[in-house]
Amino acid sequence: MSKDAPADDPMLRPRYTGLASFMRAPYRDHDWSGVEIGMIGVPYDGGVTNRPGARHGPREIRNQSSLIRRINQATGVCPYDLCQVADLGDAWIEKPYELEGALDEIAAFFGDVHDRGITPLSAGGDHSVTLPILRAVARDRPLGLVHFDAHCDTGDDYLGSKFHHGAPFRRAVEEGLLDPKRCIQIGIRGSLNDMDLWSFSHDQGMRVIYIEEFYELGVKGVIAEAQRVVGTGPAYLSFDVDGLDPVYAPGTGTPEVGGFSTLEAQLMLRGLAGLNFVGGDVVEVSPPFDPSGNTALVGATMMFEILCLLAQSRVARVARV
Amino acid sequence: MSKDAPADDPMLRPRYTGLASFMRAPYRDHDWSGVEIGMIGVPYDGGVTNRPGARHGPREIRNQSSLIRRINQATGVCPYDLCQVADLGDAWIEKPYELEGALDEIAAFFGDVHDRGITPLSAGGDHSVTLPILRAVARDRPLGLVHFDAHCDTGDDYLGSKFHHGAPFRRAVEEGLLDPKRCIQIGIRGSLNDMDLWSFSHDQGMRVIYIEEFYELGVKGVIAEAQRVVGTGPAYLSFDVDGLDPVYAPGTGTPEVGGFSTLEAQLMLRGLAGLNFVGGDVVEVSPPFDPSGNTALVGATMMFEILCLLAQSRVARVARV
Amino acid sequence: MSKDAPADDPMLRPRYTGLASFMRAPYRDHDWSGVEIGMIGVPYDGGVTNRPGARHGPREIRNQSSLIRRINQATGVCPYDLCQVADLGDAWIEKPYELEGALDEIAAFFGDVHDRGITPLSAGGDHSVTLPILRAVARDRPLGLVHFDAHCDTGDDYLGSKFHHGAPFRRAVEEGLLDPKRCIQIGIRGSLNDMDLWSFSHDQGMRVIYIEEFYELGVKGVIAEAQRVVGTGPAYLSFDVDGLDPVYAPGTGTPEVGGFSTLEAQLMLRGLAGLNFVGGDVVEVSPPFDPSGNTALVGATMMFEILCLLAQSRVARVARV
Amino acid sequence: MSKDAPADDPMLRPRYTGLASFMRAPYRDHDWSGVEIGMIGVPYDGGVTNRPGARHGPREIRNQSSLIRRINQATGVCPYDLCQVADLGDAWIEKPYELEGALDEIAAFFGDVHDRGITPLSAGGDHSVTLPILRAVARDRPLGLVHFDAHCDTGDDYLGSKFHHGAPFRRAVEEGLLDPKRCIQIGIRGSLNDMDLWSFSHDQGMRVIYIEEFYELGVKGVIAEAQRVVGTGPAYLSFDVDGLDPVYAPGTGTPEVGGFSTLEAQLMLRGLAGLNFVGGDVVEVSPPFDPSGNTALVGATMMFEILCLLAQSRVARVARV
Amino acid sequence: MSKDAPADDPMLRPRYTGLASFMRAPYRDHDWSGVEIGMIGVPYDGGVTNRPGARHGPREIRNQSSLIRRINQATGVCPYDLCQVADLGDAWIEKPYELEGALDEIAAFFGDVHDRGITPLSAGGDHSVTLPILRAVARDRPLGLVHFDAHCDTGDDYLGSKFHHGAPFRRAVEEGLLDPKRCIQIGIRGSLNDMDLWSFSHDQGMRVIYIEEFYELGVKGVIAEAQRVVGTGPAYLSFDVDGLDPVYAPGTGTPEVGGFSTLEAQLMLRGLAGLNFVGGDVVEVSPPFDPSGNTALVGATMMFEILCLLAQSRVARVARV
Amino acid sequence: MSKDAPADDPMLRPRYTGLASFMRAPYRDHDWSGVEIGMIGVPYDGGVTNRPGARHGPREIRNQSSLIRRINQATGVCPYDLCQVADLGDAWIEKPYELEGALDEIAAFFGDVHDRGITPLSAGGDHSVTLPILRAVARDRPLGLVHFDAHCDTGDDYLGSKFHHGAPFRRAVEEGLLDPKRCIQIGIRGSLNDMDLWSFSHDQGMRVIYIEEFYELGVKGVIAEAQRVVGTGPAYLSFDVDGLDPVYAPGTGTPEVGGFSTLEAQLMLRGLAGLNFVGGDVVEVSPPFDPSGNTALVGATMMFEILCLLAQSRVARVARV
Repeated sequence: MSKDAPADDPMLRPRYTGLASFMRAPYRDHDWSGVEIGMIGVPYDGGVTNRPGARHGPREIRNQSSLIRRINQATGVCPYDLCQVADLGDAWIEKPYELEGALDEIAAFFGDVHDRGITPLSAGGDHSVTLPILRAVARDRPLGLVHFDAHCDTGDDYLGSKFHHGAPFRRAVEEGLLDPKRCIQIGIRGSLNDMDLWSFSHDQGMRVIYIEEFYELGVKGVIAEAQRVVGTGPAYLSFDVDGLDPVYAPGTGTPEVGGFSTLEAQLMLRGLAGLNFVGGDVVEVSPPFDPSGNTALVGATMMFEILCLLAQSRVARVARV
Repeated sequence: MSKDAPADDPMLRPRYTGLASFMRAPYRDHDWSGVEIGMIGVPYDGGVTNRPGARHGPREIRNQSSLIRRINQATGVCPYDLCQVADLGDAWIEKPYELEGALDEIAAFFGDVHDRGITPLSAGGDHSVTLPILRAVARDRPLGLVHFDAHCDTGDDYLGSKFHHGAPFRRAVEEGLLDPKRCIQIGIRGSLNDMDLWSFSHDQGMRVIYIEEFYELGVKGVIAEAQRVVGTGPAYLSFDVDGLDPVYAPGTGTPEVGGFSTLEAQLMLRGLAGLNFVGGDVVEVSPPFDPSGNTALVGATMMFEILCLLAQSRVARVARV
Repeated sequence: MSKDAPADDPMLRPRYTGLASFMRAPYRDHDWSGVEIGMIGVPYDGGVTNRPGARHGPREIRNQSSLIRRINQATGVCPYDLCQVADLGDAWIEKPYELEGALDEIAAFFGDVHDRGITPLSAGGDHSVTLPILRAVARDRPLGLVHFDAHCDTGDDYLGSKFHHGAPFRRAVEEGLLDPKRCIQIGIRGSLNDMDLWSFSHDQGMRVIYIEEFYELGVKGVIAEAQRVVGTGPAYLSFDVDGLDPVYAPGTGTPEVGGFSTLEAQLMLRGLAGLNFVGGDVVEVSPPFDPSGNTALVGATMMFEILCLLAQSRVARVARV
Repeated sequence: MSKDAPADDPMLRPRYTGLASFMRAPYRDHDWSGVEIGMIGVPYDGGVTNRPGARHGPREIRNQSSLIRRINQATGVCPYDLCQVADLGDAWIEKPYELEGALDEIAAFFGDVHDRGITPLSAGGDHSVTLPILRAVARDRPLGLVHFDAHCDTGDDYLGSKFHHGAPFRRAVEEGLLDPKRCIQIGIRGSLNDMDLWSFSHDQGMRVIYIEEFYELGVKGVIAEAQRVVGTGPAYLSFDVDGLDPVYAPGTGTPEVGGFSTLEAQLMLRGLAGLNFVGGDVVEVSPPFDPSGNTALVGATMMFEILCLLAQSRVARVARV
Repeated sequence: MSKDAPADDPMLRPRYTGLASFMRAPYRDHDWSGVEIGMIGVPYDGGVTNRPGARHGPREIRNQSSLIRRINQATGVCPYDLCQVADLGDAWIEKPYELEGALDEIAAFFGDVHDRGITPLSAGGDHSVTLPILRAVARDRPLGLVHFDAHCDTGDDYLGSKFHHGAPFRRAVEEGLLDPKRCIQIGIRGSLNDMDLWSFSHDQGMRVIYIEEFYELGVKGVIAEAQRVVGTGPAYLSFDVDGLDPVYAPGTGTPEVGGFSTLEAQLMLRGLAGLNFVGGDVVEVSPPFDPSGNTALVGATMMFEILCLLAQSRVARVARV
Repeated sequence: MSKDAPADDPMLRPRYTGLASFMRAPYRDHDWSGVEIGMIGVPYDGGVTNRPGARHGPREIRNQSSLIRRINQATGVCPYDLCQVADLGDAWIEKPYELEGALDEIAAFFGDVHDRGITPLSAGGDHSVTLPILRAVARDRPLGLVHFDAHCDTGDDYLGSKFHHGAPFRRAVEEGLLDPKRCIQIGIRGSLNDMDLWSFSHDQGMRVIYIEEFYELGVKGVIAEAQRVVGTGPAYLSFDVDGLDPVYAPGTGTPEVGGFSTLEAQLMLRGLAGLNFVGGDVVEVSPPFDPSGNTALVGATMMFEILCLLAQSRVARVARV
């Protein structure tokens, strides 16, 4: 073609050009060979209890992620220099009209990813998708968890199912996929219909940092607590954008007024360096409620921070071997 | 209370005041006694194949319907003078995470409505909800149909189910709820993946008016054809807002460029006076894709035209007895 | 009806279903018997000096308030367990084209509320409506005041009237409805045409916390100051959403860049527990300038915090008797 | 200054530059000498019965009118070659909190305009402002009227006043400002609370063209009827943007689904050439409900068509003398 | 991968999944072998005279084009069955800060396309990009032209250049790329600063159908005229979305109120079957002014109609050989 | 005219009335005599590397600036009492299609401004316009700089030019217009393609405060550092709205998640009092990406803070003489 020189690296072209893969990384939906970290869309929102739309999240996060460049200026980390990173396409659902079957399809997709030794970084989709992802990546042993969210998502049955987006971490603990003592949940707030809604978290020993405690501890205190709780074992990172205040992420299904800011989120994420993450996700970006596109841009920005953490973790694991 | 005089008729208050029931009609979710025509929300969008959001349709149609007044200026019909009209509340879904069960819940709700002799006028929800409504209102004998839409919605299995929003009229014919020879479908257009997608309509003898034929026949020609096809027997009226051009109804799940206008729709609906309608619906209003609220206002306006038809039909049936 | 079990408590249904009363509380516009705290819309914006639209505030706050649940997670307070709470409908205006008459209508409505011993929690409307509310609830003795706002609203005549939305608290002091020594105004900022615009506040001894002092004192310092100023006597709480930074509340008539955040507002409101509030309001939500709906959601969230304070205050008053 | 050559004609500069006067005509708010046609903003919406915001109409119409150029391509008319045209500024209201007083202020402003022999072309503002304009321009003898609207605006008292925006033409006939036999109202539609709402129009002999008759007559038939009714005497042209279908003009206070299109409006306006217009207005543009700005652009476009008619009329009157 | 069956044909997947190539056709930016019709983005808006943003057009048209399916229901044409169709990527600009150089880059890209015998179908970008495309595809002989637009785009120098987006067809005639006698321009309207602005079109014998003539002729008359003017020789089709009324295409740089509808556009395009098109484009989609995305959906829909025409033309040319 | 009394001071009229000059200051595009501080629009965005639209910034900032009043409440400064302030109109571009020529036109305009001894306060436009402004105001000696931004804008060639909006301060240092030792850049963040992108800043000794350091230092620490670095010599203030977090300023070309807040910006700006500013600008407001208008309101608010600083500086310079 006539556009040789920079054409071979889409990241160097003007950002409004070309197709939008995650972070303008290579799109490898049919050839996963050699990939070490795979970015994957999970366009499914059949687990929501209120506003839908997160099925459109992966595409719009991909679109906005063209604004992200190669290197994390704050940390100096360039994930593409540390690992082979690719966009693996979507874990789309062939039979979406039934929740449990849909989750099984997602688990199968991520089982393939896990079997190939690829570290997954997903873009949801609603939070129900984290359970089947954990079924794949935590197949061998329970993981620790750093979980940013307005909700603990350790609820019980609701609307006739126990697999909706307010319960994945309860199910994951019950299925032995998470070690609750190594789990921390940050940003919890909002009104409740049942004061005991999150008692499962407390009963199991998960560390719950409500937004009021976040306000008291500050970013550094929360980081220290997360480092302490999760420790050195393998862990998963789940970032629900409704942990942020709704002005930063209006495009989400269950907004709760009064959250943390994007800068605070970035500082917390960077403070997690050194933990041993084996996978991560950004969920609950719902573009129909995000006319400005800022929620998707925020989602892409948080994905990039997590990508850096995953790359550092993977390199560290290799070094340890 | 201090607001006696006009307070007893919410329709005479400023339109931005008070709670928004459909058309500011009495809200009678717990007491249906005496109601002859019941307006019902069906907040369910679990049958969509693409963009969700129609679950939010009933509330926003109610909101915009405050702009509608008592009398149809074009026809002189005041439905409230002809029948007892009320807002019966929502046929909401207790177990929404599985499509067929959800449709069963809807069918049960409308079965109650039908048992009480109430003529239902529904606001969707996606088009999959029309099937369970028909299971109630067409329980005793097959009905004729006037169907405004960009799609025939007589497709077959897709994404693992035969009950999605592109197939309700196929199922309804198969279940004996519709007499295909007395069905007319108006406004069909858009690209296809399978040229035979709507062959069921043709094979069964449903009258399909593609948008090109609509353009040739004009409003009067279409009215004549609808009157001819449906005849004097009982019939149902289903208005999918995606039959309109997307500029009139952007807030919908499956927009197809190049439809009819709202004025053309109103003129066609008014031209159906004299047919014997036993129920009707307006579906596929998806507020998350409707920032200006115009789709919901259009939906409410079409509901009012159908309300007039249902009131006239009911009075005529009574008169015949 | 067929939807018995959870149907009797709309708060337990999916949040997009049904009609939107304030907080999904019972709608009791014709029967106020037994109500202890009444939520009331005041759909009037005839007192604005710039952008109108707050007449649409009550309906949209009601709509967004469906996202609020029963219990305040941060404080454990469930106002519905403490008091009989209902939506009393709107204090709508029969003759809106003249400002003073409109305020008289509002005063009459709230006079009825007050006569019945109901504690009012209002959703405006522009800030001019607080004066007639105070004329009812402060009829017997002057009240203290906690007032969140970007403006002191103690201005003088403007555009030919002294009852516009920039002056209600001056009028209230002049009419003996407020004890200025027990009033605190928090968040004041913005440019001025007259450096003495708020001299009435200072001359009367109201405590004015400009946003710069807020930034220095922090949330806890402001809470302490509010507790100190207001003391143990009866007080009123008025929350103008323009006290928040415009990113949290763009849908308002007189935005002033550089305000406090929603989390800071929530923490301050919760810090007011123990004060003796006899009424409250959230004003200046203008939906036409709020395309995302976030301002109305914020307004509903602040209303819920105030509802908790009012319920606690009412219970405490009863206990003291 | 350095920008001499085209700087002296703002119409030749890029359209996003400079301040936005109406049509980029000279802004002459302090010096009206020599002006023959004056464009005037009337930023007042105190007469609305539902959604406010038209007070912001003049500024946004001015903003969008920068897209309009000098010459009407369809007719060849260049109004600036025929008359001295200027933007005279705003007839703003000093005491806006009382409807009748506000209308008196407007009447006084337009009295000055009329006294100087200037033909006024106004941008509202809600439709209540047309009455005081007529009090000025029809001071000497009743006028004919071409009125585009969804409503006849010949209603009676509502919400305690007879000067709201649904009644100006009744008042104008009663005050002898209009000759009802020479009045035509085009585009009438929408639901009614009272079937006799517009009986004043019919009783007085005004020619009412409902949208259904418009659909039958077509543009040419309506033009012929308008020419016949209005005849050769002096006349006024009032264009309410809610006569258009709401998709063309969503930013308005009282939208009615099912109106005429902008192209039809332009063709009708051009067909009125030869009538003897002495003034005109475009009203009910409400920018807060017009996020895309299209309503204001449509308003500016219609203003330009009317400007051409006014210039032709004025030249013809001079020629006749 | 685990998603084998339908995964191999993205057109059969849910439309919100995966990356968005034009029409979900194969993305072949590095391998053009075998391609017969190439869809190409031209993300450049350096030629606009007013509102920019069309550089973002290709990406958003790609995004919305996922709604388009394989077969044209109205005509039965499936372009993918007739030709090898692919998305060739973007003709993006390496040095965008100078207009003429940018056009040279575009010409070079399309020169490559033309050299390989690929028929180009482009998505702009502003209308200045059509000139360099014509320099490639009309290299060998002048072409006929069917041009939908509000403007003739045969203007002269403006703002210091003769290559802005209001002049490409003048330049193309001057450079011998178009045979003006075989050119037709449809939909022309709007105000002018110079009554002779389009005199080049008239002087050269191009057939100009102003919107008023369009209204008189109707769709069929225009089709007949286009067939007559263009004849049997090779021709190009350029569709500027501002030919449509702005309600259908608000996201554009130079909107002109009063255009044709999307349905009329579709009917006209289909009526051009039989003409011998060797290339086409859709230009002036400016997403920043298109919050609903409808303009991009309309642009994609028109691209699909043109794709069908190009496929039919190419097959017919092969058949003739 | 009839509107005498307050009409002579547009700042005292309702804020939605009249034409929108910057801050409602006198519009003096043809007569600059006596002006001491000139507010100037620079409607040019030909230097952007990604999203355009800043050419529309000056008009929309003017529009929103009507909300700003005369006096800075926080500091007591009334710039209009200190200096003759006027809106000088736009430095618009006659030949916009070539970047370097456009910058030369801007330099010529500001050369005139400088020659007349007027202190310029500009509203961009993209950041490339600061270079030609500096060529005028720093003509005689290098200046210090306080620069708020997410980017250092000291990059090198990109997309074939060294004058794009990511490089003006490198060029300015190279041309001797800035003394890098007296330059401070605040708020820097975001991902990079080249870790050395801003090495020019560091190599030249510019003080770079990344957002992480900002978070640590706090507002007061940053102020102290700025005062220390810039010292007493003449300096320029450049405020790029993308220094703010995108929630405060979504309407910009290169948003970077995680910035400072508007309140922090205001406090920092006020802390710069005492520095000796000879000019300033607010750049990168892009209205097409700012549907709510908040970015333009924020831009106007920051302009007012800078106006106060410039007035104080100018008075101090005069006093020193």
